[in-house]
Amino acid sequence: MSDAKPFLSDNAAPVHPAVWGAMRNADSADNPYDGDALSAELDARFTDLFGRECAGLWVATGTAANCLALGTMVQPHGAVVCHEEAHIEVDEGGAPGFYLHGAKLMLASGEGALLTPDGIAALIDPIRDDVHQVQPHAISITQASEYGRTYTPDELAALGTFAKERRLGLHMDGARFANSAAFLGGEAAAAAQKASGPVDSLAFGFIKNGGMSAEAVILFDKEQAAQVRYRRKRAGHLQCKGRYLAAQILAMLDGDLWLHNARHANAAAAEIADACGDRLMHPAQANELFVHLSEVEREALRAQDFAFYDWGADAARFVTAWDTRDEDATALAKAIANL
Amino acid sequence: MSDAKPFLSDNAAPVHPAVWGAMRNADSADNPYDGDALSAELDARFTDLFGRECAGLWVATGTAANCLALGTMVQPHGAVVCHEEAHIEVDEGGAPGFYLHGAKLMLASGEGALLTPDGIAALIDPIRDDVHQVQPHAISITQASEYGRTYTPDELAALGTFAKERRLGLHMDGARFANSAAFLGGEAAAAAQKASGPVDSLAFGFIKNGGMSAEAVILFDKEQAAQVRYRRKRAGHLQCKGRYLAAQILAMLDGDLWLHNARHANAAAAEIADACGDRLMHPAQANELFVHLSEVEREALRAQDFAFYDWGADAARFVTAWDTRDEDATALAKAIANL
Amino acid sequence: MSDAKPFLSDNAAPVHPAVWGAMRNADSADNPYDGDALSAELDARFTDLFGRECAGLWVATGTAANCLALGTMVQPHGAVVCHEEAHIEVDEGGAPGFYLHGAKLMLASGEGALLTPDGIAALIDPIRDDVHQVQPHAISITQASEYGRTYTPDELAALGTFAKERRLGLHMDGARFANSAAFLGGEAAAAAQKASGPVDSLAFGFIKNGGMSAEAVILFDKEQAAQVRYRRKRAGHLQCKGRYLAAQILAMLDGDLWLHNARHANAAAAEIADACGDRLMHPAQANELFVHLSEVEREALRAQDFAFYDWGADAARFVTAWDTRDEDATALAKAIANL
Amino acid sequence: MSDAKPFLSDNAAPVHPAVWGAMRNADSADNPYDGDALSAELDARFTDLFGRECAGLWVATGTAANCLALGTMVQPHGAVVCHEEAHIEVDEGGAPGFYLHGAKLMLASGEGALLTPDGIAALIDPIRDDVHQVQPHAISITQASEYGRTYTPDELAALGTFAKERRLGLHMDGARFANSAAFLGGEAAAAAQKASGPVDSLAFGFIKNGGMSAEAVILFDKEQAAQVRYRRKRAGHLQCKGRYLAAQILAMLDGDLWLHNARHANAAAAEIADACGDRLMHPAQANELFVHLSEVEREALRAQDFAFYDWGADAARFVTAWDTRDEDATALAKAIANL
Repeated sequence: MSDAKPFLSDNAAPVHPAVWGAMRNADSADNPYDGDALSAELDARFTDLFGRECAGLWVATGTAANCLALGTMVQPHGAVVCHEEAHIEVDEGGAPGFYLHGAKLMLASGEGALLTPDGIAALIDPIRDDVHQVQPHAISITQASEYGRTYTPDELAALGTFAKERRLGLHMDGARFANSAAFLGGEAAAAAQKASGPVDSLAFGFIKNGGMSAEAVILFDKEQAAQVRYRRKRAGHLQCKGRYLAAQILAMLDGDLWLHNARHANAAAAEIADACGDRLMHPAQANELFVHLSEVEREALRAQDFAFYDWGADAARFVTAWDTRDEDATALAKAIANL
Repeated sequence: MSDAKPFLSDNAAPVHPAVWGAMRNADSADNPYDGDALSAELDARFTDLFGRECAGLWVATGTAANCLALGTMVQPHGAVVCHEEAHIEVDEGGAPGFYLHGAKLMLASGEGALLTPDGIAALIDPIRDDVHQVQPHAISITQASEYGRTYTPDELAALGTFAKERRLGLHMDGARFANSAAFLGGEAAAAAQKASGPVDSLAFGFIKNGGMSAEAVILFDKEQAAQVRYRRKRAGHLQCKGRYLAAQILAMLDGDLWLHNARHANAAAAEIADACGDRLMHPAQANELFVHLSEVEREALRAQDFAFYDWGADAARFVTAWDTRDEDATALAKAIANL
Repeated sequence: MSDAKPFLSDNAAPVHPAVWGAMRNADSADNPYDGDALSAELDARFTDLFGRECAGLWVATGTAANCLALGTMVQPHGAVVCHEEAHIEVDEGGAPGFYLHGAKLMLASGEGALLTPDGIAALIDPIRDDVHQVQPHAISITQASEYGRTYTPDELAALGTFAKERRLGLHMDGARFANSAAFLGGEAAAAAQKASGPVDSLAFGFIKNGGMSAEAVILFDKEQAAQVRYRRKRAGHLQCKGRYLAAQILAMLDGDLWLHNARHANAAAAEIADACGDRLMHPAQANELFVHLSEVEREALRAQDFAFYDWGADAARFVTAWDTRDEDATALAKAIANL
Repeated sequence: MSDAKPFLSDNAAPVHPAVWGAMRNADSADNPYDGDALSAELDARFTDLFGRECAGLWVATGTAANCLALGTMVQPHGAVVCHEEAHIEVDEGGAPGFYLHGAKLMLASGEGALLTPDGIAALIDPIRDDVHQVQPHAISITQASEYGRTYTPDELAALGTFAKERRLGLHMDGARFANSAAFLGGEAAAAAQKASGPVDSLAFGFIKNGGMSAEAVILFDKEQAAQVRYRRKRAGHLQCKGRYLAAQILAMLDGDLWLHNARHANAAAAEIADACGDRLMHPAQANELFVHLSEVEREALRAQDFAFYDWGADAARFVTAWDTRDEDATALAKAIANL
């Protein structure tokens, strides 16, 4: 792949050098599981970042992070409201059904894979409040959304109010949370708080943003955190050398690397988006672009060594990452402009 | 911990340099999940090692490896027969109940945490063959056992015959499989085959033996392997940068590093065991020692900077690892001899 | 309710006198659970009726019957394709998620709540054959459908062929199976075979048709039947005085009472349907009618003591039953004609 | 079986005439499921009986009643402490594993299948309070116990205090609750309250005591009751003609029939027990007797038309029921005395 200019996905990007360094530094023996000194730092570090008390638990995948968090909010006989194109519905191999012991996903609509109180109400208001119909227990939103859109703080506040009124938990799948935080702007704490709003739990993604194998489940409720500690073990996700996962996360938090990496990816995406004009299917608010491109046009781009996925018959998806080279982004922007 | 002579556990040992090297070499981008070139090698490599066709899938923990394998053999309404002190019963936080959707563990007795056909028969023969009683569907054994014992090829063959007669699956928890293989002797393939015998599936542990975060589920049945591929994803264990896990396993297989590391740990354990004499509670057949030691004696050892766990009121457990220093083993042997 | 002319539902109708008689005759003690003489007859009786070997197990509800049967066809990581308005999706309180250990329902479209191979293909063909997406394992159809429609033998044959090609199990929710059999015509065995076609399993409903608390799970595969026996117990559905359930089913089979009762209900529905003309939303092919009626018209009917449910804002649902009085059906037909 | 003198079990006894009558009276149509007038009475009736607010929900089996109640107290990652010979462990086909989504049963010892705070503490005190070990969430006791023993009010109070201290739920399997209540004495409300003590939930059995197919789940906590309503449906246990189940329970409550029937069965058991002398393995405190009898002695009794089960090699179990004929009990007492 040496000459390729890769825009396939951020999920296979290399590990950031600072993360490698932190992992190597974790090599000396310490207590197993999450009893080590590095894992012990996480709660405090995330509490600082989010400005409200929380627990931060490492886990190896976003799927596990999402499902462990949702499991604290949803009884097996209940349901999670999510977007019909949400990752938990479409791409997690039925993991929510497993982790939630058979609870249902209820699929709401919304532009750009974003949910709104109205869209959710349209889905759940017709549900009869009787035992024959599964009742919603929580809402799951994705920040950035599956179409690279970012919820604004106002939109999050409205969802938080709605969730509270309906007595529903509010979960955020933040596989690309950093990109939304970077998009919303401000220093680390401000950006993280704007991007997370009033959610009850957050799967905070680091892997796509320079990590290797560590995401964080952030839980703003102590009892839910206690439950997740048991269920992480029960799901086979309590790694015995957990210090290597904690090290990755701490390296990403140190010096706000998570935010810097995301800003880099967003900037590359923004440059390309500017060149797309009307071709752009969704506003560029993170690091994913969905672009109308004919088959011929896509072939032309691939002939210039750009690597990316088709998105249906008439479009393509481009994803930038922490390691996207400036020259590759510029080249892609030009190539699209020249089509 | 700089001066400590650590015999607490092998589960928090550092990562072997060759594993670090292989991970760094995996840094260049490749396909995500298990679509990368390294993951693609695993089936063939394990097929060579075991001398019969199999699939080898990476997964982050032994708990997940065990439970994914057992899930192919046990219906939710059935049971797994295991030793009453088996790790899956005692130390996996109820993971089998989760992964097997409520199937039961049935607890058999046996010296040294080893199962025998007779011991299993004593447990399952009284079960009425009716729907009121849960029926066994599989047997799970641990190699090396929870007391550091190794099943011989003859013992494994007898269990295989028994399992076949009773139409039960036969699973092996091989968190310390390498240590048993090293104990049984021979070159890599011979040792692996002797130590695994006729099992249907094996959780082949690498983490305690120099890896960081990759165990292998070995499945000798194609349909079971296909099922585990789906269920690994469903359990949130399909990491997107899976190439870093494959790299760890390949590094352990290259040059038979797994066997060399285990031989080193076993040799250290053997040296200490020789010094224990009658204090030894179980024959030393891997890298774990259980030693009668009074509280006073344990304090005396700890005063000499030896780190280890108590084992009840009158004994201690010592575990050696791939990185145990020869001088530490020798020192411990002497210290025990001098008590 | 003495003066009411009830068309609310068949699910609360009285128990047929012959069923009462059979239950009373079962009063003398016999073996508990399904070890009694009456339960022992069921397999043979259903094998005769369907003309192919099968097992027939009593169970107290259609929900349990459906879910126990589906559990034999669908792995926890798979899915059942059903109509988006299927009872198992809309009205069973999430029971499939419970019984199938988190497997998914995939919702296909189809006129009259009927599925077709094309409709199913449109749903499942876009599913990528990879582990990130849940794969279908079975199809569930409802005979008569949720809109009172009956699959013809040709339609069933086409679904059977499609299911076989795709290696999917084929299940039938037959809560009103008798009404479809009666609609398709012929003597009991012929009617049952036409209405069931090539399904692998059938939840054969008796409760709506004159029974009290016994449906039959019909399984045309021996291994699946064996599994359901265990899982019926595991689900708390193995009643200790099972002979009273077997008695109900046998009473319904004796003299083809099930078919006679269904013919009666169908005839009443047909008479009303004739009076509905263009108001009829779906062809009347069983004992449920969905009729365009304005709010004013519905009030007019209710003023004449007809009891029925609204069906959205502009329609009503009328259900006839084994005990619908001829004069009530005639009166309703006239009343609708006179609107 | 006409000449047999049946002491096999109470679980296949005929239905009491008053129950038949009540069921027939329920024949006229009413709302389906639990929306009927009879089901609506249950909460109030049981609240009167137990002298504290509760919900009473019908369900078809004791297995379902136990598991639905336990599901409100035990998270999927937790455990239920029960006696090693408890029905939920030994004879319910793994139903707790299904209903509790993989939670564990922890087996305590205790004479006569009775649990004590000390016995439970001996089991759970050694459990490390860490995520590797499954933690207990509830205790389940059986009244009358599997050996026909009855907990006294003092013993129940002690268990209640212990459960509260340890923050464990306290559940009672009352398949033969009526027999214990009758044994403890007093009028209906006093007897019921003495026999149930401070439990959080109770599976109140009616089927063995003259009913056909209705047990009651009694829940003394409103939130738990609300949850069970959903889960009863989800488990396929919400019968559409629920009024026939409510009718059975109401008939048993009317005129304290449940207590009269139990007194009758207990009296028969007491008469036989008196004749057993030292042969009696457990004090007779309900309607089950376990009696040392050699094979020859058992044959002698069977030759006299007494029907009963062997209990191991050297004993037999005799169960009396609401319909045990006085002359049969007297005859058995004499026959045993004459051995």
